[in-house]
Amino acid sequence: MSSPVYTKYRLENTGLNPALKNSSSELPRIALTMGDPCGVGPEICLRLLAEQVVADVCVPLIFGDLSILKAVGSRLNLSLPATSYELGDDRWHSTAAPAIVNISHLDPGAISPGVVSAVAGQSSYDYLLAAIDAAKSSDVDAICTAPINKEALSAAGIPHPGHTEILAEQTATDDYCMLMTSDVISCALVTTHIGLGDVTSQLTTERILSAIRLSAAALRRIRGRDPRVVVCGLNPHAGEHGLFGNREEELVIQPAIDAAKSEGINISDPMPPDTAFLPSQREATDVYVCMYHDQGLIPLKALAFDTAVNVTLGLPIVRTSVDHGTAFDIAWQGVAEISSLESAMRLAAKLTAGKK
Amino acid sequence: MSSPVYTKYRLENTGLNPALKNSSSELPRIALTMGDPCGVGPEICLRLLAEQVVADVCVPLIFGDLSILKAVGSRLNLSLPATSYELGDDRWHSTAAPAIVNISHLDPGAISPGVVSAVAGQSSYDYLLAAIDAAKSSDVDAICTAPINKEALSAAGIPHPGHTEILAEQTATDDYCMLMTSDVISCALVTTHIGLGDVTSQLTTERILSAIRLSAAALRRIRGRDPRVVVCGLNPHAGEHGLFGNREEELVIQPAIDAAKSEGINISDPMPPDTAFLPSQREATDVYVCMYHDQGLIPLKALAFDTAVNVTLGLPIVRTSVDHGTAFDIAWQGVAEISSLESAMRLAAKLTAGKK
Repeated sequence: MSSPVYTKYRLENTGLNPALKNSSSELPRIALTMGDPCGVGPEICLRLLAEQVVADVCVPLIFGDLSILKAVGSRLNLSLPATSYELGDDRWHSTAAPAIVNISHLDPGAISPGVVSAVAGQSSYDYLLAAIDAAKSSDVDAICTAPINKEALSAAGIPHPGHTEILAEQTATDDYCMLMTSDVISCALVTTHIGLGDVTSQLTTERILSAIRLSAAALRRIRGRDPRVVVCGLNPHAGEHGLFGNREEELVIQPAIDAAKSEGINISDPMPPDTAFLPSQREATDVYVCMYHDQGLIPLKALAFDTAVNVTLGLPIVRTSVDHGTAFDIAWQGVAEISSLESAMRLAAKLTAGKK
Repeated sequence: MSSPVYTKYRLENTGLNPALKNSSSELPRIALTMGDPCGVGPEICLRLLAEQVVADVCVPLIFGDLSILKAVGSRLNLSLPATSYELGDDRWHSTAAPAIVNISHLDPGAISPGVVSAVAGQSSYDYLLAAIDAAKSSDVDAICTAPINKEALSAAGIPHPGHTEILAEQTATDDYCMLMTSDVISCALVTTHIGLGDVTSQLTTERILSAIRLSAAALRRIRGRDPRVVVCGLNPHAGEHGLFGNREEELVIQPAIDAAKSEGINISDPMPPDTAFLPSQREATDVYVCMYHDQGLIPLKALAFDTAVNVTLGLPIVRTSVDHGTAFDIAWQGVAEISSLESAMRLAAKLTAGKK
């Protein structure tokens, strides 16, 4: 466990300010990973490319499988972009038109929509690795990810719990933070995919301060002004002065808040979690810093399920994602909503565009 | 720790079926405790008595302080009921008209609105004890409580964290459960006022089954049909098959669900907490059984703050409460909302009326 040293806040660590090439287009070029081929990823990627509001803000490149996209497009009467490139073909590094970057070369007859498949899991992983490489080398300006399937990843022998952990590993990032953001509510998570019984032991002042800094910087860019940050307590009623819990609010959370205040961040003291999300408080809050997964994601999904975007903060690259899963029960049926993916693409464009 | 013996479900243990007197009125007679004299309790009690929708369903008896009610009524131009009785005067046992039961005899000049006071804390405790006695002896049919102040209770040397614990002690009830209910969402809590780090160790199959039974019975009475019960998991994604946490969903929660199913309760398997409260799932749910305080109260207060009612299940008496606190910052100013107290009174009447 590292000591709570409060390093000076650095914008370049927020993942919101990578160097850009953007040589052949004014618009940011975004790698849109297709996700698990057996899920709703292929169809929502294709449908997204038909949206003018997306074409207005970015050049999307689908990192996926041409054969699968053709099969899904044919079944659902969806158009494909005019051009596709093999991954090794350098021309996609500078195209200014939407395109497919063909990576996995699957036989559409060898997989089934809605059925877990090791080869599909491996492919979804390969799209992501290729997109990360492209972002690291600035061949794209950002990554936006369609959903992958944990069971399929596991069947392929890839033990990561999800996108975020793979992104962190591939970019050698220790200090990252998951932000879910929408027009009505945004929540940053200090801890994520761990058991509820492990939350208390994994909370540190350093991790909380890092989440505060990263989310304040992200919301500053999204809102275009200094955001109002609310920090949730850990225990019922924020501990009620030590009545519940072990004074985590005073001993662990408050020092992070005090450090953030000294850096000029507009921030609350630890707030009782159950009243933090009242309508009146939501109106006065740009981002909530939440101590554990469900403290943030219960209210976020209850209030903004279809439009929330998942952003990984702290990476050296910009990455956004849909907030839903592979939806195997409706895969390849043409009924999946694209609102979350559309929001994710537009936010990725916003986070890359207009930077120095 | 007692063993998880699944005793046969008994309606008389739900607190929803006490013997009634109701000799002099068709309407249930409800003890409305005034709460802390320095908070918003006195004014919302008086304002509630002017509501026809309350008069239509019950006979309210304010268990409080005549002098304080006079002072608040005079300041805010609110009417008092025509009659008041001393606590020892048996006539209130059978009155069919709204009245005050005068208990504490405070000097209004000796307390200040919005200021913590030991004598006020002691008085709020005395109102509650008198109301519990009246309900136990069936001199009233139910109790509805205005807010008390924990700091004032503590200043008076009363260490209870709140109403629920006092009610449980005074009625010698071990097996009780807090339910927050509204038209849009209802949540029952398996654990309540404990640190987040203590939740895992305090969860038992027996406690979960008890909460399921009590909340299913309560919602059956409120909705007039078999309720659809959703049980939340403990960990993110309900543990994702052991990936997060220590398989509490399988080892501790599922056995309670299986037992409830065998009793004919319409109930879900452990659901991922963050998707359990999606709009589509809320429409298909009558009551959520939540493993800890904020798992239930974050979504409940985000969605139904002004109208939710707190019901203590498992007591031998009917008890409902407002879902807000003493609101010292606006006490005696005439601006406090009465919607929650009104909902609480109407629900208390509903839970007592129409019983065999």
